[in-house]
Amino acid sequence: MTYCVAMRLDAGLVFLSDSRTYAGVDHINTFRKMHFFEREGQRVVVLMTAGNLSISQSVVNTLRERIEANKGRNLCNVPSMFEAAKHVGDCLREVHARDAESLKEFGVDFSAGLLLGGQIKGEEPRLFQIYAAGNFTEATQDTPYFQIGESKYGKPIIVRVITHRTSIDEAVKCALVSMDSSIRSNLSVGLPLDLLTYERDAFRVGHHCVLREDNAYFELIRKQWSQRLRDAFVELPDPDWERIHLTAEALRERDGASRKARRES
Amino acid sequence: MTYCVAMRLDAGLVFLSDSRTYAGVDHINTFRKMHFFEREGQRVVVLMTAGNLSISQSVVNTLRERIEANKGRNLCNVPSMFEAAKHVGDCLREVHARDAESLKEFGVDFSAGLLLGGQIKGEEPRLFQIYAAGNFTEATQDTPYFQIGESKYGKPIIVRVITHRTSIDEAVKCALVSMDSSIRSNLSVGLPLDLLTYERDAFRVGHHCVLREDNAYFELIRKQWSQRLRDAFVELPDPDWERIHLTAEALRERDGASRKARRES
Repeated sequence: MTYCVAMRLDAGLVFLSDSRTYAGVDHINTFRKMHFFEREGQRVVVLMTAGNLSISQSVVNTLRERIEANKGRNLCNVPSMFEAAKHVGDCLREVHARDAESLKEFGVDFSAGLLLGGQIKGEEPRLFQIYAAGNFTEATQDTPYFQIGESKYGKPIIVRVITHRTSIDEAVKCALVSMDSSIRSNLSVGLPLDLLTYERDAFRVGHHCVLREDNAYFELIRKQWSQRLRDAFVELPDPDWERIHLTAEALRERDGASRKARRES
Repeated sequence: MTYCVAMRLDAGLVFLSDSRTYAGVDHINTFRKMHFFEREGQRVVVLMTAGNLSISQSVVNTLRERIEANKGRNLCNVPSMFEAAKHVGDCLREVHARDAESLKEFGVDFSAGLLLGGQIKGEEPRLFQIYAAGNFTEATQDTPYFQIGESKYGKPIIVRVITHRTSIDEAVKCALVSMDSSIRSNLSVGLPLDLLTYERDAFRVGHHCVLREDNAYFELIRKQWSQRLRDAFVELPDPDWERIHLTAEALRERDGASRKARRES
């Protein structure tokens, strides 16, 4: 399994991926799932992958070969992120044409999920989610993030925090908290993490860090979040069993009536 | 979809279920998913259901008919919760024998998930998760809770908070926060909620409340949790990009070195 999240903010783009691959409990490995292509001053394109590792590696290798061959359409010469998404979708369809039938014979689904984000000179930063069939959707101001892989555990904090106006630093914090929830709930999501930020109109990667088990900042975030969450939880009011049946309106009326009674007594 | 959670604590049992059933966006309905059987002084047995509504209703109706017929094995006369779980598993298998083939013809999976908890005189409180095949597992001190339905969004807070030593009131708060996260992330989980508590050795239901949209306590929990979570999030330290690459050890060394340098200057 895998967990990757990407956010398209007014301020730029944030990408975070884990690196655990999993084929049964006796077959856990570390593979990087984040790949980026940078032409300083011209474009930054970032790809994250989930699903069957042989499929996603084939896609990435195909994309790299096209860039290295330096002829025909490739991620370093397509004129827009929309064309980049179509190109990645096409490569995925080539891998499908080659592998899907054989995989099916062995009972293996053709599973793949990709996130593609970046900025190409002349455009805004854009973010796409590409599906196994090679089709794709684009992040919008209303839904400025995409997740692939084991996404549910880490979704609640994103839903509560992220809007297109969130700053890059806040989004990084949120992505790390979201990753922490996924790691705690699912053994098949694991460190090290790849973290990449891109500042709008920079046309070069902002930060790219690999966070390992002993990373001081991630450790701090995990510990402090855990503690604050428990504090916040403890501070929630206990159920008041006499009043728990009441609607908000009935409670206001009741409290109003008792205040009135107190005034009159 | 559905979300139900049950917890088996040293202090007793807590059950919470939503009431949304979903068969496409134009077919959302409200059905209660919590059923309980109480013989004061003797036993309390609580059942929560997820999966195909026709299957879970058939199981519940079969269980009720057996109790009403008042002969043969039923939930009100089985001598232990283990026997109760076997009985529910058997009823599920009867429904499977009747319906599974016909459902399959229409491309419908035989999906069912049940949580069964309670206490029968002579035993401790116990909690079981019963699967579609009629087999089941029991909650333990190490894993004192079970979830069915759309369980992933609401799991992180339970993982962080619940142990077998948690009090009933704390567990109720945790279940409601967990439900809130599920409702926010998945449209197919919805109010009203059924909440039931059982205090160990009471042999009668502690509290049973139906929480609707306008419930004052749930509204308070939702608002306060949301606010505190955002506060806790804002208080997390921003990434320090110069130091983010450092391990905890390197950071200690560096900070030690800079303290030393300050002392020496």
